[in-house]
Amino acid sequence: MTSSRRDFLKKAALLSAGAILLPNNLLATKSSKKQSRRTNSKKMSLTFRPYDLRLNHTFTIASYSRTTTPVVLVEIAYDGLVGYGEASLPQYLGETQTSVCDFLKKVDLSQFSSPFLLEDILTYVDAIAPKNTAAKASIDIALHDLVGKITGQPIYRLLGLNPDKTPATSFTIGIDTQDIVRQKTLEAKPYSILKVKVGRDTDKMLIETIRSITDKPLYVDANQGWKDRQEALDKIFWLKEQGVVLVEQPMAKTDLESHAWLTERSPLPIIADESVQRLTDIQPLVGAFSGINIKLMKCTGLREAWKMIQVARANKLDIMLGCMTETSCAISAAAQLSPAIDWADLDGNLLIGNDCFDGVKVVDGKIKLSDRSGIGATKR
Amino acid sequence: MTSSRRDFLKKAALLSAGAILLPNNLLATKSSKKQSRRTNSKKMSLTFRPYDLRLNHTFTIASYSRTTTPVVLVEIAYDGLVGYGEASLPQYLGETQTSVCDFLKKVDLSQFSSPFLLEDILTYVDAIAPKNTAAKASIDIALHDLVGKITGQPIYRLLGLNPDKTPATSFTIGIDTQDIVRQKTLEAKPYSILKVKVGRDTDKMLIETIRSITDKPLYVDANQGWKDRQEALDKIFWLKEQGVVLVEQPMAKTDLESHAWLTERSPLPIIADESVQRLTDIQPLVGAFSGINIKLMKCTGLREAWKMIQVARANKLDIMLGCMTETSCAISAAAQLSPAIDWADLDGNLLIGNDCFDGVKVVDGKIKLSDRSGIGATKR
Repeated sequence: MTSSRRDFLKKAALLSAGAILLPNNLLATKSSKKQSRRTNSKKMSLTFRPYDLRLNHTFTIASYSRTTTPVVLVEIAYDGLVGYGEASLPQYLGETQTSVCDFLKKVDLSQFSSPFLLEDILTYVDAIAPKNTAAKASIDIALHDLVGKITGQPIYRLLGLNPDKTPATSFTIGIDTQDIVRQKTLEAKPYSILKVKVGRDTDKMLIETIRSITDKPLYVDANQGWKDRQEALDKIFWLKEQGVVLVEQPMAKTDLESHAWLTERSPLPIIADESVQRLTDIQPLVGAFSGINIKLMKCTGLREAWKMIQVARANKLDIMLGCMTETSCAISAAAQLSPAIDWADLDGNLLIGNDCFDGVKVVDGKIKLSDRSGIGATKR
Repeated sequence: MTSSRRDFLKKAALLSAGAILLPNNLLATKSSKKQSRRTNSKKMSLTFRPYDLRLNHTFTIASYSRTTTPVVLVEIAYDGLVGYGEASLPQYLGETQTSVCDFLKKVDLSQFSSPFLLEDILTYVDAIAPKNTAAKASIDIALHDLVGKITGQPIYRLLGLNPDKTPATSFTIGIDTQDIVRQKTLEAKPYSILKVKVGRDTDKMLIETIRSITDKPLYVDANQGWKDRQEALDKIFWLKEQGVVLVEQPMAKTDLESHAWLTERSPLPIIADESVQRLTDIQPLVGAFSGINIKLMKCTGLREAWKMIQVARANKLDIMLGCMTETSCAISAAAQLSPAIDWADLDGNLLIGNDCFDGVKVVDGKIKLSDRSGIGATKR
């Protein structure tokens, strides 16, 4: 990679980073002259725009609360087709709409002859700057969508996976008052597994409130919220009695020793979330966790996620597939991998009021993949 | 997998194990009524036949000599298309044409709705019986060929690889008399790297004979032929001075301790060959070798090989892609992965006189992938 390539400003990406357009005004309006010129080209052309997701409920986890989630929506046009991608930017990941747009402006896809060159393109994109994993994932998702559309196949099919083997997805209930937790539990009726965010002093109240309404299996995510390993272990034993089936990231992400101690003693699988971002993070975690939570926005997208699945399996690690608050674009992309994993937590699109994509569905609690090409998402 | 499934005899596979047909008489003669009925079905149908490869030269490695190599050629028909596969059976692997045909008779593909279900189908095939890796590879190759043909894409493209990034392939020179080694070295003119089989007391003569003719880089394969680690290390230092760039399997395959000792001290990469067969063999070798030699016939085919590449990379192991004596069917299949690896030794089709497939070429020493769909091989 030459530095001149890295510094090249993507001329087609003209939107200023602060602009917010309405969903229906996406750049790729089919009737526009610009669009037809752009999409009929055998060069790839990248466009993107910020978009703010409105959450149905204020979302609280161990460390903070929020009511919206910023995302950046991406399109890559090639040979009359358009691939969709998305970067989701919860604040704790350290990316913003501005940082994503700044990153995307540096991406020059015109140097590559085809979207099929995934290994080369994504290696180039990854080398543009460190981190920026959500921005990188937005490119990865749009390229996979294009590859699927060119071949006329869904991504799960190109990966050799059986769409009937999707797992159920959990539906997340954040930290909240007893009344809201009760209300959310009732709203979660269509879902067969609930994921509960814990890590504050209300943990027992939360679980007991849910248990007063339903006996569905629960995933518990502590988001590094527990500080004492013996206390964490005691809680985990209690949680098992409450019908919890796994615990995510009980303690600080760098404290592998405590996690190894817990994993050795825990009656439930201990899953790394904040402790694992990318492929190279997996090997050091072996022994400290029972499994890992893979999220496209952490790991730069589908290609690296697929590699992580192979490496996790080789190390006998269980695999959870998670998400951020995202539209049905990024959720549908992640769902393509779901027949290959153990537990899915792909509810990000179910928690928002202004999803601008139609994609993967949840039917009887289970992820339902469609026959649509690519990531299986269309614009609403 | 139920045992009744495993025991199910593939009714379509009617050829007796001992039959040898001429290349042009492959079952899939397009004009036959049986063929058209078979290939227009949306069920997969498997046929196979033994075939004997004639070697251009008697082939000698550390442990034995041979003049022919038995293979079994496989076809899977589906929806008007035919996928080609091959099992190559050098005697040291322990499979024979009879064992392969016996295995293939147990494979019931009619229970699967499409060749795209690679994960399910290959998991089922793998569970039919232990070992039988070449038989399993023949199914994997034919299925990948079908998937490529259905989508109209070469496998390398579906894997996101750049066909321009193929490596050179080495051309193998077996253990032989000085005259024959000289003749073979001259015949190897089109190839830019030579692979030399060593491990007998003629090692130095061999290298010096080749060096009297050419200064091309050399790979050295000891096939477990060296018995003393200090002697092996001394040889490796001498080989480095002779322009050798890597050494394969210097000592006994189970002797990881000696290999770790050698790898720590060796000025050349030490590559596991006999020590590594499948995905699960990789993790225990980390630290004992610098890299691994992946061969489709050892590892059950392209899907597992691709997983092995990811796991090897995650462990910072170098990757060599090797072969048996094979037709251009299995060699073209392996070549699809070659843009993702470090060293290729894909010359099995160059060493035989009756190759019944046309496929991947070597141009200026480098593997040249084509635009053909699937594995890129057609019948001659």
